[in-house]
Amino acid sequence: MSSDKPAVTVIGLGSMGSALAAALLDRGHPTTVWNRSPGKAEPLVERGARLAATPGEAVAASPLVIACVLDYAALYAVLDGEADALAGRTLVNLTSGAPEQAHEAVGWARERGADYLDGAIMTTPPGVGSTEMMFLYSGPRAVFESHRPTLAALGDPLHLGENPGLASLYDAALLGLMWATMTGWLHGTALVGADGTPATDFTPVALRWLTAVGGFLTTYAPQVDAGRYPGDDATVDVQIAAIGHLIHAAESRGIDNALPELLKAAMERTRDAGHGSDSYASVIEVLRARKEEG
Amino acid sequence: MSSDKPAVTVIGLGSMGSALAAALLDRGHPTTVWNRSPGKAEPLVERGARLAATPGEAVAASPLVIACVLDYAALYAVLDGEADALAGRTLVNLTSGAPEQAHEAVGWARERGADYLDGAIMTTPPGVGSTEMMFLYSGPRAVFESHRPTLAALGDPLHLGENPGLASLYDAALLGLMWATMTGWLHGTALVGADGTPATDFTPVALRWLTAVGGFLTTYAPQVDAGRYPGDDATVDVQIAAIGHLIHAAESRGIDNALPELLKAAMERTRDAGHGSDSYASVIEVLRARKEEG
Ligand SMILES: NC(=O)c1ccc[n+]([C@@H]2O[C@H](COP(=O)([O-])OP(=O)(O)OC[C@H]3O[C@@H](n4cnc5c(N)ncnc54)[C@H](OP(=O)(O)O)[C@@H]3O)[C@@H](O)[C@H]2O)c1
Ligand SMILES: NC(=O)c1ccc[n+]([C@@H]2O[C@H](COP(=O)([O-])OP(=O)(O)OC[C@H]3O[C@@H](n4cnc5c(N)ncnc54)[C@H](OP(=O)(O)O)[C@@H]3O)[C@@H](O)[C@H]2O)c1
Repeated sequence: MSSDKPAVTVIGLGSMGSALAAALLDRGHPTTVWNRSPGKAEPLVERGARLAATPGEAVAASPLVIACVLDYAALYAVLDGEADALAGRTLVNLTSGAPEQAHEAVGWARERGADYLDGAIMTTPPGVGSTEMMFLYSGPRAVFESHRPTLAALGDPLHLGENPGLASLYDAALLGLMWATMTGWLHGTALVGADGTPATDFTPVALRWLTAVGGFLTTYAPQVDAGRYPGDDATVDVQIAAIGHLIHAAESRGIDNALPELLKAAMERTRDAGHGSDSYASVIEVLRARKEEG
Repeated sequence: MSSDKPAVTVIGLGSMGSALAAALLDRGHPTTVWNRSPGKAEPLVERGARLAATPGEAVAASPLVIACVLDYAALYAVLDGEADALAGRTLVNLTSGAPEQAHEAVGWARERGADYLDGAIMTTPPGVGSTEMMFLYSGPRAVFESHRPTLAALGDPLHLGENPGLASLYDAALLGLMWATMTGWLHGTALVGADGTPATDFTPVALRWLTAVGGFLTTYAPQVDAGRYPGDDATVDVQIAAIGHLIHAAESRGIDNALPELLKAAMERTRDAGHGSDSYASVIEVLRARKEEG
């Protein structure tokens, strides 16, 4: 097990932890693994991983410890008693959670003398190891920088800032974007499907269109930061007129209209707040103001 | 006005019609224009367009007539009496409308002896003329093919099929995807913004993520067509657990949660319909079934 790459420990060998350990092995990192159910380590041991007998032995094996278990309760269940082993090491926690949980974990790690980075994995296990996939990190920049080359084995590492809650907060925000986009796509797919167009015909067009939509987001982002939303390209009033066509077409084809109705209501609230001639970016004003749905 | 390019007439010189005529002039097409308010033709006449005195004169000037006015009522108001001029010509209608209106327009054009293509413009006026922008067409393929080189001056022409309603139907479906995506992005932008992240920092990460989401759509499209949704990557059950984090984080930051609550309700209905272990693509089953929001 001689290597010029730093040693890494992976705690948690579910589908994601196993993918992380495999990516580290692929890049030549001496990799120690531990999992509550030891059987899951077998395929990794066959590929050269060292199986630790206890969490303490696993932590002691490497300066960098990557944890990826079900939730924070599982993280603490595994590592709470390992203060001696954790002292002087870096814990990178890729377990999903809330920003507040990341803040708590910083204090927990500090009590045990460990540096702490929080992270979020923006891909599924098959995407691990690809430089196209984003791994989000938050916490001390110096800690991130010293482990960046190792973290690059897992995917493209992005440091979001020192606030440890940022990785979880971005994770939630990006998943929300994903669900909204996927549901909008499914609604459109159901709509064209009602008139006989297969999803595999519609989707390449939808993907090209998403690229154009990405251009709109790039235009709108500085409008959001400036708090001014010039409606040069298309106004909220124009969008309200257009969404009526969608609702009518979906209604007459028996498609559930809850999503477009909600979007229309948000646009109407935005217009009523005085943004009828502004761009769609002004909808953020009513999202922030926490108005109730009409 | 000698040119090897075919002559084209543009009816309607609002912001979109003016952009269409300008793109045709840029590519060297002899271009005749008409607008209800003649003043809007001036900048185009300066660039070489010929201003027709009446709609009939405009139609008579070219084998291909492109119309882009407010709505179908405006289209008929302008062209209803021009049967003599329309006979033997092709009308390409880029006015927005419903699929049913496109079907009606086919009959209307046939009575006047004209070929008819319906179209939808998937960009704003500044994007006209770019080959990256999609122009969607539906109607007889032979008619489309014979005018494709001219239509390519406006953007990338895609023929969706012979059913004349397809361009409008895709238009509605794609706009729905756009509104869902833009609103999901605004929600995420509000969420990270509450903890101090500018929209201009979040958006490049969101755009990279949208590329990954596009990959999920490509995976899910054949699942929709097959009516089977293997949850290999991430199941509906897993997404329901994860959306709780988003709702909690947004709630505690005073962000309106109507959109994630609706998405969660759709996922729960999908789970209750027996798709908890299936992929997110199975949500289409409850969109099609037109269940009421809980
Ligand atoms: N899968 C993805 O696509 C994906 C994507 C992004 C983020 N994530 C996140 O990555 C984390 C792991 O996900 P996964 O897909 O690997 O899940 P998984 O396959 O269900 O694995 C769960 C892991 O947690 C361990 N665990 C659960 N409860 C435990 C406890 N009380 N004590 C000790 N270990 C415990 C399990 O150990 P046993 O083997 O002993 O049960 C297993 O190693 C989650 O936070 C998930 O949100 C996953
Ligand atoms: N702008 C966009 O980003 C965009 C994108 C995709 C699709 N579209 C569609 O393109 C079409 C035109 O949009 P636009 O942005 O160019 O709108 P616009 O700037 O408001 O122009 C409207 C046009 O319709 C004409 N018009 C309205 N009522 C009329 C009537 N009763 N009789 C004759 N002409 C009439 C107007 O003539 P006057 O000048 O005499 O008023 C003008 O030429 C719409 O269907 C729109 O949905 C626009």
